[in-house]
Amino acid sequence: MADARFHRSAGSLTLLEIAEAAGGKLVAEADPSRRFTGIATLAEGGPDQVSFLDNRRYVTAFAESAAGACIVHPRFASRAPAGMALILCDDPYRGYARVAARFHPEPPPPRGIHPAAQVDPDAEIGPDAAIEAGVVIEAGVRIGARCWIGPNSVIRAGVIIGDDARIDALVSVSHAVIGDRVRLFPGVRIGQDGFGYVLGAGGHLKVPQLGRVVIGNDVEIGANSAIDRGSLTDTSIGDGTVIDNLVQIGHNVRIGRGCVIAGMVGISGSAHLGDFVILGGQVGIAGHLRLGDGAQAAAQSGIHRDVPPGEVVGGTPAMPMRDFRRVAGALRRIGRRSAGTGAEE
Amino acid sequence: MADARFHRSAGSLTLLEIAEAAGGKLVAEADPSRRFTGIATLAEGGPDQVSFLDNRRYVTAFAESAAGACIVHPRFASRAPAGMALILCDDPYRGYARVAARFHPEPPPPRGIHPAAQVDPDAEIGPDAAIEAGVVIEAGVRIGARCWIGPNSVIRAGVIIGDDARIDALVSVSHAVIGDRVRLFPGVRIGQDGFGYVLGAGGHLKVPQLGRVVIGNDVEIGANSAIDRGSLTDTSIGDGTVIDNLVQIGHNVRIGRGCVIAGMVGISGSAHLGDFVILGGQVGIAGHLRLGDGAQAAAQSGIHRDVPPGEVVGGTPAMPMRDFRRVAGALRRIGRRSAGTGAEE
Amino acid sequence: MADARFHRSAGSLTLLEIAEAAGGKLVAEADPSRRFTGIATLAEGGPDQVSFLDNRRYVTAFAESAAGACIVHPRFASRAPAGMALILCDDPYRGYARVAARFHPEPPPPRGIHPAAQVDPDAEIGPDAAIEAGVVIEAGVRIGARCWIGPNSVIRAGVIIGDDARIDALVSVSHAVIGDRVRLFPGVRIGQDGFGYVLGAGGHLKVPQLGRVVIGNDVEIGANSAIDRGSLTDTSIGDGTVIDNLVQIGHNVRIGRGCVIAGMVGISGSAHLGDFVILGGQVGIAGHLRLGDGAQAAAQSGIHRDVPPGEVVGGTPAMPMRDFRRVAGALRRIGRRSAGTGAEE
Repeated sequence: MADARFHRSAGSLTLLEIAEAAGGKLVAEADPSRRFTGIATLAEGGPDQVSFLDNRRYVTAFAESAAGACIVHPRFASRAPAGMALILCDDPYRGYARVAARFHPEPPPPRGIHPAAQVDPDAEIGPDAAIEAGVVIEAGVRIGARCWIGPNSVIRAGVIIGDDARIDALVSVSHAVIGDRVRLFPGVRIGQDGFGYVLGAGGHLKVPQLGRVVIGNDVEIGANSAIDRGSLTDTSIGDGTVIDNLVQIGHNVRIGRGCVIAGMVGISGSAHLGDFVILGGQVGIAGHLRLGDGAQAAAQSGIHRDVPPGEVVGGTPAMPMRDFRRVAGALRRIGRRSAGTGAEE
Repeated sequence: MADARFHRSAGSLTLLEIAEAAGGKLVAEADPSRRFTGIATLAEGGPDQVSFLDNRRYVTAFAESAAGACIVHPRFASRAPAGMALILCDDPYRGYARVAARFHPEPPPPRGIHPAAQVDPDAEIGPDAAIEAGVVIEAGVRIGARCWIGPNSVIRAGVIIGDDARIDALVSVSHAVIGDRVRLFPGVRIGQDGFGYVLGAGGHLKVPQLGRVVIGNDVEIGANSAIDRGSLTDTSIGDGTVIDNLVQIGHNVRIGRGCVIAGMVGISGSAHLGDFVILGGQVGIAGHLRLGDGAQAAAQSGIHRDVPPGEVVGGTPAMPMRDFRRVAGALRRIGRRSAGTGAEE
Repeated sequence: MADARFHRSAGSLTLLEIAEAAGGKLVAEADPSRRFTGIATLAEGGPDQVSFLDNRRYVTAFAESAAGACIVHPRFASRAPAGMALILCDDPYRGYARVAARFHPEPPPPRGIHPAAQVDPDAEIGPDAAIEAGVVIEAGVRIGARCWIGPNSVIRAGVIIGDDARIDALVSVSHAVIGDRVRLFPGVRIGQDGFGYVLGAGGHLKVPQLGRVVIGNDVEIGANSAIDRGSLTDTSIGDGTVIDNLVQIGHNVRIGRGCVIAGMVGISGSAHLGDFVILGGQVGIAGHLRLGDGAQAAAQSGIHRDVPPGEVVGGTPAMPMRDFRRVAGALRRIGRRSAGTGAEE
């Protein structure tokens, strides 16, 4: 249940309004005019609240839930407790997301430039943008309409940001061109020098990092993630790609559209990812590799070779997932051999 | 030896005072009125300084130390160099920690609100709290007595913080309820949106993140760590849990009391950890798992299954530590097979 | 090609000037007075631009490049396209780095103390230093000549920084003594408490962290990396060591000169690294270990034993690289066994 202290409610909705928002179908016996005040988990929901079931793990919680209504796939409908109104959806998580956004629309950003912000007179700030306290915006920056720059963030000279960006607190951006509706979470670092040196016994020579970071539309980048600018070409991130917290992206990396990159992934310099690539948490990718469209890697994989389009890999060194499952099984069997059976250790 | 530039000394102490602070026993021949000026490592200590031995690795350094006194377990007493005064403790590291705190008490926080801080008139700041320069505190925030908020930190609307918190520089906190005596190190991120999307070929739909972060008393969170708020229920951290640097904690994660989480651990969404769980560095935990009370995981483990209470696991995929040792031994043997003996590669 | 929006050009250079900057030799048929306007990748370069070839992977791109000139090793000269002027270098990457720096010298830092910075009257700021907006500098700090402190960074009481440091935005430094020409990228955390507790069922006792961080000359530390101060002795980093983004360095760690530490490496407390140690991305090193001079570890290695000087290790648990290759080969073979051949799963 959303705490009103942090998440303002838009008020109650009828079951019909909820079903429409969810893109789902009401079961026949439900009363479409019944009102609900908000959303809640299966475990916490009461009679005035709507819940959802999107994970087989929680079917028992569903069967025992006191929530008044639930967004659910038709195949689980028979498990519903008596009296629960059902909204049937082929994709209940998507339905839930829409209903949640309807009950709790995002708060409107503030407006205007806070007097304690430092905005260079040579920067252009779009209409209805909000620049919060302590923000530093340098010369030549262009920020689009309705952007929201959080407290104490720093936008370095020349950076271009499209419309409707939400840049949270304590972010730094330099050497970057950023699209529309981009979200940068607190502590994100964009555009600093990549890790480029000519190694030598007499000292490592720094290689000038003369590229940029180019970010498409509808990209989200998680807290404390770091994206280095290119060394000569650009580091780039395609439209609709979402990146979790504490991710490291090296110089000259190219990431396609619609990728999903979980927390603590590290992508070494000059690696290229196609579109709709999915990487689990803590994956590492060596430099200069190619991952084709739709490639996927399980959490903690260490990728040292190119991955063809659509292939799913796992393990270190990463191999096709089917092979990795066989390896994991073999290792588990080695581990279970007891000393008494003549095992090797 | 503590550098007085950074760590002010409370002055010298007698051996008796030191032994009492340590909760230890002086050996008979030691002079209880002998004065010591401070603490030092075994290698660096001189006749006016107290050292300690808590790790078998350093017994030789102990035997050769010039420190005037040493806090030590009775079993090592016979290895002491001539002339060293011994303070015998069953837990010498605990004894050392108390003596160190006695010689170098923490500096008192500053007081009052810096004129270059931005505190919303609708925020409540407790008595004797210190708000340093550049801090931004939004409407509805409540901060307890004697809290200390470091320079340029940002506390978003509605956040509640108990008494005696120490929040260091450049921290951001939103959507959170925090207990007493909590410490957040520089760059910590609390309360941003979790990584929740409904994936789809036509674009990933963002799922509203409508929960909070609830943190108990006496919790410490290391530099640049990130804790996402819950998606609907809360992300929570129990009393007395300590978390190292660069740790990632996903939405809806529940962590019990007294857990110890080393650097660079990643805990995926909706995982639940019991009380007194211990995780080594760079461990990864998949989503929705359960780790029972007292479970432990070796560094770099990749945990993909529930871990029962008290079990110690290691490896990727993680298995009982005993099994993992067998696997590690088998891998080392494979590695050592030389090409000349008919090995496989 | 460097975007003039972010990287100002020093103007065009003749081929002879470029060859001299590169420390290379022009092939006989090239016209030394021909002018070039800048640098570019092999794929993007045009007739007025200089490119370079330093990686065998890109020989085909070299053979097809439209760049007017190229810095290249003599062994690849025969693959050059017609009309390309060649600058022969034994170390083309080093040559390129120098030419790039000649075309695009680093912009001079700003000068003076921004009126929105908070500098304690008891701090000493060297001549020609730049302190940007929102910076907080506490009492007793000493900052050398020509240092550049980026917006909203925080330098805590007593810190000493040498000459010509560049500290980027939103950095925090405490309890530290730092040499000349050091670079700290955005979000770096230096000097916070190490992760030191006496564990106990009744609560974990915090161990006072009474050391410092000591950083030599010519050190670079990447974005959002964290370096804890020593617990009693110092955490130290030797001259010329370079550290990538999101690296974690625990208390009492000693790192020698000229080391190269890639992104997301974690080094546990009291580990000591010699000189010129090289660590790949996401490597983890357990506490109290010793890595000798010139030791190297492949990406994602988990190091649990000392590594002798010059040894190259890989894998978890880490073993000599030759052995690890054998293990990786054996695992790949296990993975490829199809169910039909009597394999074990």
